[in-house]
Amino acid sequence: MATLGLIEYKDASPDVRAVYDDIMATRKTDWVNNFWKAIAHDPVTLKRTWESVKQIMGPGALDPLTKELIYIAVSTAAQCPYCVASHTASARRKGMTQDQFKELMAVIGMASETNKLVTGYQVEIDEQFKNIW
Amino acid sequence: MATLGLIEYKDASPDVRAVYDDIMATRKTDWVNNFWKAIAHDPVTLKRTWESVKQIMGPGALDPLTKELIYIAVSTAAQCPYCVASHTASARRKGMTQDQFKELMAVIGMASETNKLVTGYQVEIDEQFKNIW
Amino acid sequence: MATLGLIEYKDASPDVRAVYDDIMATRKTDWVNNFWKAIAHDPVTLKRTWESVKQIMGPGALDPLTKELIYIAVSTAAQCPYCVASHTASARRKGMTQDQFKELMAVIGMASETNKLVTGYQVEIDEQFKNIW
Amino acid sequence: MATLGLIEYKDASPDVRAVYDDIMATRKTDWVNNFWKAIAHDPVTLKRTWESVKQIMGPGALDPLTKELIYIAVSTAAQCPYCVASHTASARRKGMTQDQFKELMAVIGMASETNKLVTGYQVEIDEQFKNIW
Amino acid sequence: MATLGLIEYKDASPDVRAVYDDIMATRKTDWVNNFWKAIAHDPVTLKRTWESVKQIMGPGALDPLTKELIYIAVSTAAQCPYCVASHTASARRKGMTQDQFKELMAVIGMASETNKLVTGYQVEIDEQFKNIW
Amino acid sequence: MATLGLIEYKDASPDVRAVYDDIMATRKTDWVNNFWKAIAHDPVTLKRTWESVKQIMGPGALDPLTKELIYIAVSTAAQCPYCVASHTASARRKGMTQDQFKELMAVIGMASETNKLVTGYQVEIDEQFKNIW
Repeated sequence: MATLGLIEYKDASPDVRAVYDDIMATRKTDWVNNFWKAIAHDPVTLKRTWESVKQIMGPGALDPLTKELIYIAVSTAAQCPYCVASHTASARRKGMTQDQFKELMAVIGMASETNKLVTGYQVEIDEQFKNIW
Repeated sequence: MATLGLIEYKDASPDVRAVYDDIMATRKTDWVNNFWKAIAHDPVTLKRTWESVKQIMGPGALDPLTKELIYIAVSTAAQCPYCVASHTASARRKGMTQDQFKELMAVIGMASETNKLVTGYQVEIDEQFKNIW
Repeated sequence: MATLGLIEYKDASPDVRAVYDDIMATRKTDWVNNFWKAIAHDPVTLKRTWESVKQIMGPGALDPLTKELIYIAVSTAAQCPYCVASHTASARRKGMTQDQFKELMAVIGMASETNKLVTGYQVEIDEQFKNIW
Repeated sequence: MATLGLIEYKDASPDVRAVYDDIMATRKTDWVNNFWKAIAHDPVTLKRTWESVKQIMGPGALDPLTKELIYIAVSTAAQCPYCVASHTASARRKGMTQDQFKELMAVIGMASETNKLVTGYQVEIDEQFKNIW
Repeated sequence: MATLGLIEYKDASPDVRAVYDDIMATRKTDWVNNFWKAIAHDPVTLKRTWESVKQIMGPGALDPLTKELIYIAVSTAAQCPYCVASHTASARRKGMTQDQFKELMAVIGMASETNKLVTGYQVEIDEQFKNIW
Repeated sequence: MATLGLIEYKDASPDVRAVYDDIMATRKTDWVNNFWKAIAHDPVTLKRTWESVKQIMGPGALDPLTKELIYIAVSTAAQCPYCVASHTASARRKGMTQDQFKELMAVIGMASETNKLVTGYQVEIDEQFKNIW
């Protein structure tokens, strides 16, 4: 179980509730997942993390679904089961199809394989990759 | 330098050349990057890896640029400098803008931060994440 | 469950018991945690690991609590749930407060985020960082 | 070299300069390291990251040097050479002695070893570690 | 549970069954483990992955048991509990003794420790390691 | 360069020299690689690490070359360039052929790919893997 336990809405202080309310309003859901309830013991981290997530994951030069796919990729590469589960669910809510999920997995797997071949064969960076803009 | 050295086109066997030719034709370039030249010492791995990459990174349910962004995400999470450099260059060739690159970085950074908060706070997976399809 | 099972005190050989006794005496507890019982199948590894842990984690230029915080940081970065749980408990026994735990988590999260930004933006080491002593 | 290059002070926009100024003032130095110059291409990320770092790394329940040690631990565990170099230098400026550095390294190494033994021996979390507060 | 669920033999399409049949025939077993059932939702990935595994893990310049030990080492270093469990079982079927398992663990632990000491002490590669063939 | 610099034989204290002598005698070489010179600033860590390496990497239930292959696998998975270079050289000295090296790389790559597929597809451990001895 979570190190410090989970803070439920009914037990939350006003500043924590304000973040929970914003999470639910932003996501158009009526519940808050365990991650936020676990870090709510530190209201400063809760607020900073939520505001960063909200800012970063919103629409921009990349669409929100693409950002979720990237989040899953990082979480899978980092071997974080909770993060994989929660962001796969998020991507689903944002419209990820099963075919997209399967291709995402194939790319992650392929990248992980070539990452290690590169490291094991001690490959040096090509000059052509050094000034690309 | 690469553990077994790099095999240049002029020194390559016919089966290695065939892969190099296909890489250049597929990518519409006239050169082959060091990764392939380093693993060309093992023609079976070269061929299998290239065919997998070609199959996986082509168009499908996800577009090729999105796949490159995912590749960069995995390579960054895995701390592979060569892979970051080469796939950032690939994404650039496929049309990645600087704004897209910056948002990609922000998402990768954010995901890495929350990955560790999840692990450190020992957060358990919500029931709601367990049957999403 | 543990690959080779757990060796309980009553079933342990004299040399394994000697290590268990020293663990309990050093930690002023009356039980031994699963890690040691799992690796006790290899008495040489058990003894070497315990002696190294005992030597390294004792008082020195860094105090024992600081060392536990570092241990948690490494274990969190490495995504090892058992290690996070056991060393969070150890840190607690050595006096870690909830406020210290929360700051520890914030630092770990922050470091993980900037680690990836550095890698993704391909930042080169400043000359000023090369001769600091 | 950095993917988008480095933005020097003289070439920076006013909002980037404001961050650079705050970095130098906070750290009592007259230069800014490459990390900030590399991410300055994204002023939003620059500002958010610096403000988070400033907030998190300042004095609190843990002292600033301890926080640097934790930062080094995470960066070493994550295999980020730039981050190891820059935060070792930061820790040095904040008073880290060579003896503290050596003990830090010993703890990081030890933790990494036992992390893997835990995973490889498939050790389950002790009940005693589940409710520690 | 698995993101897309598991595809059992009786529910599988003919091409998936063909892979399952080959897995069982190759391994001389009458069951297929969850990994294959989980990725069978993507028959292309299933087939490509199985064919690669079959080709790579068979006899060659390294014997099949040595390859399983290497697989366990990578999976342990990558903190993948499923992979550790499944390949420890595979190694066992291929004749791994308990003494071999224990030595494998000791090497993995040792390597992980020195990996981090190298990174933390910022050790540069010796010239002698650069041209070894 | 190494954080604390390298301690050359001529500048070493008697206890450091004793370790250097044992390294050279054990390996039948006339030089010591940078790793040991970098950590020699901490003679206790130098001695403990060398004695552990010597004990673990010697002949036993696994032969010394197999142990080097495992060391390379861990170091590659952990993305440690120095460790990959040094242990590839060690394996070479102990008789690793190019064909063995290539198969090693293929196994490492394959394991890394399936590690991530397992994590991304959230595969649960089969009951059959839980009691294998």
